Amino acid sequence: VPDMSRSLSLAVIPGDGIGQEVVAEGLKVLSAVLPQDVKLETREFDFGAKRYHATGQTLTDEDLDRLKEHDAILLGAIGDPSVPSGVLERGFLLKLRFAFDHHVNLRPSKLFPGVGTPLAGSPEIDFVVVREGTEGPYTGNGGSIRTGTPQEVATEVSLNTAFGIERVVRDAYARAQARPRKKLTLVHKNNVLVHAGHLWTRIFQQVGAEFPEVSTDYLHVDAATIFLVTQPERFDVIVTDNLFGDIITDLAAAVSGGIGVAASGNINPGREFPSMFEPVHGSAPDIAGQSKADPTATVLSVALLLRHLGYEAEADRIDAAVQADLAGRADLPVRSTVEIGDALAARVSR
Amino acid sequence: VPDMSRSLSLAVIPGDGIGQEVVAEGLKVLSAVLPQDVKLETREFDFGAKRYHATGQTLTDEDLDRLKEHDAILLGAIGDPSVPSGVLERGFLLKLRFAFDHHVNLRPSKLFPGVGTPLAGSPEIDFVVVREGTEGPYTGNGGSIRTGTPQEVATEVSLNTAFGIERVVRDAYARAQARPRKKLTLVHKNNVLVHAGHLWTRIFQQVGAEFPEVSTDYLHVDAATIFLVTQPERFDVIVTDNLFGDIITDLAAAVSGGIGVAASGNINPGREFPSMFEPVHGSAPDIAGQSKADPTATVLSVALLLRHLGYEAEADRIDAAVQADLAGRADLPVRSTVEIGDALAARVSR
Ligand SMILES: CC(C)[C@H](C(=O)O)[C@@H](O)C(=O)O
Ligand SMILES: CC(C)[C@H](C(=O)O)[C@@H](O)C(=O)O
Repeated sequence: VPDMSRSLSLAVIPGDGIGQEVVAEGLKVLSAVLPQDVKLETREFDFGAKRYHATGQTLTDEDLDRLKEHDAILLGAIGDPSVPSGVLERGFLLKLRFAFDHHVNLRPSKLFPGVGTPLAGSPEIDFVVVREGTEGPYTGNGGSIRTGTPQEVATEVSLNTAFGIERVVRDAYARAQARPRKKLTLVHKNNVLVHAGHLWTRIFQQVGAEFPEVSTDYLHVDAATIFLVTQPERFDVIVTDNLFGDIITDLAAAVSGGIGVAASGNINPGREFPSMFEPVHGSAPDIAGQSKADPTATVLSVALLLRHLGYEAEADRIDAAVQADLAGRADLPVRSTVEIGDALAARVSR
Repeated sequence: VPDMSRSLSLAVIPGDGIGQEVVAEGLKVLSAVLPQDVKLETREFDFGAKRYHATGQTLTDEDLDRLKEHDAILLGAIGDPSVPSGVLERGFLLKLRFAFDHHVNLRPSKLFPGVGTPLAGSPEIDFVVVREGTEGPYTGNGGSIRTGTPQEVATEVSLNTAFGIERVVRDAYARAQARPRKKLTLVHKNNVLVHAGHLWTRIFQQVGAEFPEVSTDYLHVDAATIFLVTQPERFDVIVTDNLFGDIITDLAAAVSGGIGVAASGNINPGREFPSMFEPVHGSAPDIAGQSKADPTATVLSVALLLRHLGYEAEADRIDAAVQADLAGRADLPVRSTVEIGDALAARVSR
């Protein structure tokens, strides 16, 4: 008899603050949903503020080599007020995105029934943002002269390549093509940032020829923020630059139930490197260790992880479990992080 | 007897689309509110799409010289779908901001009673954004190589100077100091755009020493968009970079009643050059010529213009008239552009 068992090897980075707590629940739900024949192997990594303070390290080349041995990475949250702004963001989060060529930053926004929104009425919100993850103003290009003096000049350089834009735009078209509404909106600021803007616009049009069924649309980023609060139902798939994507996905999370339920994936679609999945929220040190954090965003990130690795049915079961859990919340007392995780694990294993 | 008469010399740029209609009402209210002894002189300029098509010109050096002869500029809207994206934006709007050193881009957001908002509940919204207007990613620095090929690389360079940041930050502190809540929030992305971000943060702290009564706060731009929809009441004065300001002021306009009531000033505080005042909305070609546009944003821009030139009492009267008019709207049938202008002119002349 051939060995039919499959395996899923996962690098787990709980990180700082509430990261530990939400990741534990994410793993609980993952174990509960995986088919019996899939062997789940996890390896925990201690990246984050504590390690930075102890060793001065954020993410070394050896770390990257060890991470590379896994099928995917699950991250809780990285960041602590004790570390100067920028150190862990650039030294860990961005370093990992760039090292593993996570060029598709996937951020779905869905307003589930029963979930509160700051918007009046009950808008139908169900779209996904495909944010470019390895270019734009995030490349760390820039510098300053006469630093610290009244004559200081500082630059930030946004780098954009046809190669980098084409692959993320094609990914976004394919995602739009696979959804019922088949609509893709490009968000940029091509009336001011004309060089990058023309490049994005040209490639958006060119790749569109390969997807005749997908209807397209263009919005300046400023106008996009207006529509996100006045007509969020107009969006299906959005593709955008790294920085614009950073901004509009936080807004999108806010209008579609808050960052407590916002999931994200930093994806290398070709699987040359492991992709990383993480809740959009941060480490929330103010509520850490109190079992107050909502693990839902992490659990939804586990669903994205499963979908990326081809476990579609399991991802669907997680999404359905979350939807059912959220719909019933109004009738329940406030639950702890562990209680929500238990409830979701119970639902997916039924 | 000495000649005690004063004068106000205004360059008027109706521009495209609804620009003509709303500017007419703005001037009507201006004439009605000005004291008898102030001689209002206006000169109309034909900038915009029509002139661009006829002459290929957007804004010439001679135009700038003629504009310079005035105390201030009132603009309706510039832009038309018949002109390629970027041509009028960069050739007219941005050229004027840079030529006249409009480094303070002032955009108040106030949710007036009776005005609709996409947000649930009735949040108290009354803040003002001081957006830098002459630096950042708006300087037109950048370019591309291998343009139009699969090897194209395009850059956009954000330029930031201690000189440019200090003057706008000081202006924002002074505005915060003059308001009851005395609170100033810096919005940037200093964890990723570290060079520009550190410069903004350093100067924000340094200038703060001159304003000990002003309490300060920092938000990343992505987080700021969340608070703009979940807790807009937390903001009093915001100071920010050119691009972040572009994005968050459209969102701010959307949550505080829409761009129909959003006013703005492109201000040269030292008055070396005339400042320009304009509604935040665009030329709206779809409703042009139908007397459907709401002139309120233009009228509020006239109030900003008057305040800039020292006519505080007159500006207050316009603000009060607008507030009263908006409060009474629910009981009225929909009015035309002219009817709203007439109503506001009548209120300010009482
Ligand atoms: C923490 C920061 C570097 C990061 C970003 O700007 O990408 C975060 O805001 C995000 O959206 O994942
Ligand atoms: C039209 C465009 C150039 C302009 C800008 O980006 O500044 C507009 O969006 C604004 O906010 O005044």
